[in-house]
Amino acid sequence: MNARSAATTRFEEAERDPQIGKDAAKPIITDLRSALLKAQYARLAKADRSLLIVVAGIDGVGKGSTVNLINEWMDARHIRTLAYGPPTQEESRYPFLWRYWRHLPAKGRSGIVFGSWYGPLFNELVSKKPNRSKVEQLATTIRDFEALVANDGVQILKLWYHLSREAHKKLTNRLLADPETSWMVRPEDLQVARKFKRVREAAGTMIMLTDSDLAPWQVIPSADERLRAISTGQAILAALQAPAAAAAEPPPLRQLLPASPAQPRKRRLARVDHSVRLSENEYDDLLAQWRSRLAHLVRSKAFADLPVVLVFEGNDAAGKGSTIRRITHALDARQYRVVPISAPTEDERARPYLWRFWRELPAPGNITIFDRSWYGRVLVERVERFARPAQWRRAYEEINQFEQQLTDSGILLIKFWLAITKDVQLQRFRDREHSPFKSFKITPEDWRNREKWGAYTNAANDMFDLTDTSRSPWHVVSSNDKRHARITVLERIVTAIEARLAR
Amino acid sequence: MNARSAATTRFEEAERDPQIGKDAAKPIITDLRSALLKAQYARLAKADRSLLIVVAGIDGVGKGSTVNLINEWMDARHIRTLAYGPPTQEESRYPFLWRYWRHLPAKGRSGIVFGSWYGPLFNELVSKKPNRSKVEQLATTIRDFEALVANDGVQILKLWYHLSREAHKKLTNRLLADPETSWMVRPEDLQVARKFKRVREAAGTMIMLTDSDLAPWQVIPSADERLRAISTGQAILAALQAPAAAAAEPPPLRQLLPASPAQPRKRRLARVDHSVRLSENEYDDLLAQWRSRLAHLVRSKAFADLPVVLVFEGNDAAGKGSTIRRITHALDARQYRVVPISAPTEDERARPYLWRFWRELPAPGNITIFDRSWYGRVLVERVERFARPAQWRRAYEEINQFEQQLTDSGILLIKFWLAITKDVQLQRFRDREHSPFKSFKITPEDWRNREKWGAYTNAANDMFDLTDTSRSPWHVVSSNDKRHARITVLERIVTAIEARLAR
Repeated sequence: MNARSAATTRFEEAERDPQIGKDAAKPIITDLRSALLKAQYARLAKADRSLLIVVAGIDGVGKGSTVNLINEWMDARHIRTLAYGPPTQEESRYPFLWRYWRHLPAKGRSGIVFGSWYGPLFNELVSKKPNRSKVEQLATTIRDFEALVANDGVQILKLWYHLSREAHKKLTNRLLADPETSWMVRPEDLQVARKFKRVREAAGTMIMLTDSDLAPWQVIPSADERLRAISTGQAILAALQAPAAAAAEPPPLRQLLPASPAQPRKRRLARVDHSVRLSENEYDDLLAQWRSRLAHLVRSKAFADLPVVLVFEGNDAAGKGSTIRRITHALDARQYRVVPISAPTEDERARPYLWRFWRELPAPGNITIFDRSWYGRVLVERVERFARPAQWRRAYEEINQFEQQLTDSGILLIKFWLAITKDVQLQRFRDREHSPFKSFKITPEDWRNREKWGAYTNAANDMFDLTDTSRSPWHVVSSNDKRHARITVLERIVTAIEARLAR
Repeated sequence: MNARSAATTRFEEAERDPQIGKDAAKPIITDLRSALLKAQYARLAKADRSLLIVVAGIDGVGKGSTVNLINEWMDARHIRTLAYGPPTQEESRYPFLWRYWRHLPAKGRSGIVFGSWYGPLFNELVSKKPNRSKVEQLATTIRDFEALVANDGVQILKLWYHLSREAHKKLTNRLLADPETSWMVRPEDLQVARKFKRVREAAGTMIMLTDSDLAPWQVIPSADERLRAISTGQAILAALQAPAAAAAEPPPLRQLLPASPAQPRKRRLARVDHSVRLSENEYDDLLAQWRSRLAHLVRSKAFADLPVVLVFEGNDAAGKGSTIRRITHALDARQYRVVPISAPTEDERARPYLWRFWRELPAPGNITIFDRSWYGRVLVERVERFARPAQWRRAYEEINQFEQQLTDSGILLIKFWLAITKDVQLQRFRDREHSPFKSFKITPEDWRNREKWGAYTNAANDMFDLTDTSRSPWHVVSSNDKRHARITVLERIVTAIEARLAR
């Protein structure tokens, strides 16, 4: 049986509108409630994963009241109901998944999502002439998102609430007939009756496109209120009790990397020309010029519609901080934010690793500068084994997908690696130790990282090979001469923004 | 010397445009930078207060570049620059201080505020015909805010950047003359020259109105770049090194409470009529009616402009949760949020106690329901001594001011106390212990609180006496009969909303 008809079969069962009598339901509900609470507290204590429950389905079948009931059966203090309407003006300025990322629950807790990321896909499928490539794109985005978070501590349970056309009609009419309940029928519920067949087909296709082992769909028969609630409770209980699924094992690294050519050429960092220098006079002139160009650019009318993300990675003491300051000196404090990334906080460890970066994305006309970034996953977390091999091997693709979502939504993303040679790093470490107001910048950790220079170089080279895309290329800039680095970086940023605004 | 001329005197010193030569500055800066870093790390380690630096002053004197320099001299990882422009559309839907409350830094860290809460007051003072009552209102709001946060772990340093009219003109012209720096001059900077006298007077008045021991103003001479930076650094250093100021000692409780009349009447909780009952039939009818009225109301067009805050307090087991559910059953999941309040998290303890409530305020058309609230300060924190007497005695007025800001901004605030008698509480505690799915709701803490019934009753009665205002009265509802409580609460909410929408 193909996947589409598997979904249709599940619909058929729900469309028989099964029911359960009050007396039969009572003992089931009693046991279910105790079991749910017990499982909820076990999950809270273990805190190894969060539970994200997507509530979707035919409009007008009582999903809202079922959710209210779940909040009553379980301990509502550890559940957050996340209900989304059409995107607000603020939300529309960000990539479509942004608002869902912001509110991901912490490990141990649960979130119930209404108005989920399935909205646009379903609307496209149920329209008169669904655009095939849009459908593909949305489905891929959803699958990638769910795989990423499911592999990183978020357990996803997707519930589709379903019933027969007749049952829907009966339910709607019953509610409408009584002025005390007519308010429960929304305009979209009435539309369902008219286009039930189309809704059903769209739902079947959507489920087929987005069903997966890590994030499976379940169909909840919804004609009978009690059975709807019991089925929901049982699905949640099963999810809470299920052992953590093994995360997908990504291919080994050698399979990911491009094949070595017959004549092996040097890897990226070995190809950096560290001989470039700028004299102090040249630097002063160029700095003033580029700073002024940048300053005018970001104050232009056109820039108000452009969100910009700058990423800085590089060796310790390469000069990331001071380069960033030369950029911000040209900006208005109201339009930029520098986000220095170091070890994650408790809140951040309780969510997928990309969560803390999603939170800092800029609105149009604003610039977020990451001082270190999500690339930590494939650099420090790889070398220091903070992340398991499967995790960092999976990260290259996750990062590429993430960056694609950013650029798809209009963000101008520019990635810089500031490179210095080992001897220059040693000199700068020594300078820091002897400076009364730089000595806070040199720690035992820095010296330990230096001992792993080779491992870090290798990790960076793999990173360039695997995340240097045409949409979001890496700019590797020699920073042995700080003046050269600052001018090169400013120049790249200015020309990139000018090119974008000229489109 | 009166306060106004004290400010003018400070301006006179700054308007002499003092300078410092490069050679003289160098050793000062070197020492200052080391001392600043040392003091910053000491503050971070001790984490007893945060430091909030308000950067205000004449436009166009280089406040932005001074702030950049501070970020360079200190460890920028523990400083957040909070720059605000004119209120965004989202921000305008909330009370004016909301956006500042949201970003208060945690204890140990620092925040630099640009575009602070002084904006509206200064703009009013500098306008052609300042509205006196508006000026008074804004100044009072600012003083109350600063006193509140300064008494609760936020050290405020207010810097006014000042120089003579001639120096300002010279600076502006110099920047304008060079196309590489002309971008630094903003339209508002040019306006300063024209109305320097008015700006100076407005500033003097503003400083006089808002200067206080807990949150003093300092005037920073700004004509000379180096001296501006040194003065800023020295002001910050002094603030970081200053011992924590003793918080204001509020009047003793008996002074706050209304004088006892000759014939003492019973206190509020003793006057509750617990004999009210509703039969099951009455209840079912009334519930359906009020639920329907509420449901229609919140879906009406007019409601989309109204933000609503509901507060529920009361004895343990009074029925807060189940009453709240009867309300939310009528609402759309997208328009409400229930916020259950219990012991503060680490993030919350690092900020003033009201911070976590400011974060949950609703936008227009939305409802936030607090299950327990800021009143915890004068209830559990008073009885269990989690707050010092000075802190909870101060809280009555702080709470009244807070609620006034909410209602001033258009929020409909309704406060409920659900009251039960001691014997009914005992019965419900016992029921919970024996229910397989309610037993999580009864803990040893509940039994311990019960032993302090008298103290809690007394604290609640004081609370009613001191925070029952005509704008925001308390509704004390007997909840011995849960059905009666639910109907009464629904009825109050519906009639309050209807009355507001009818205006």
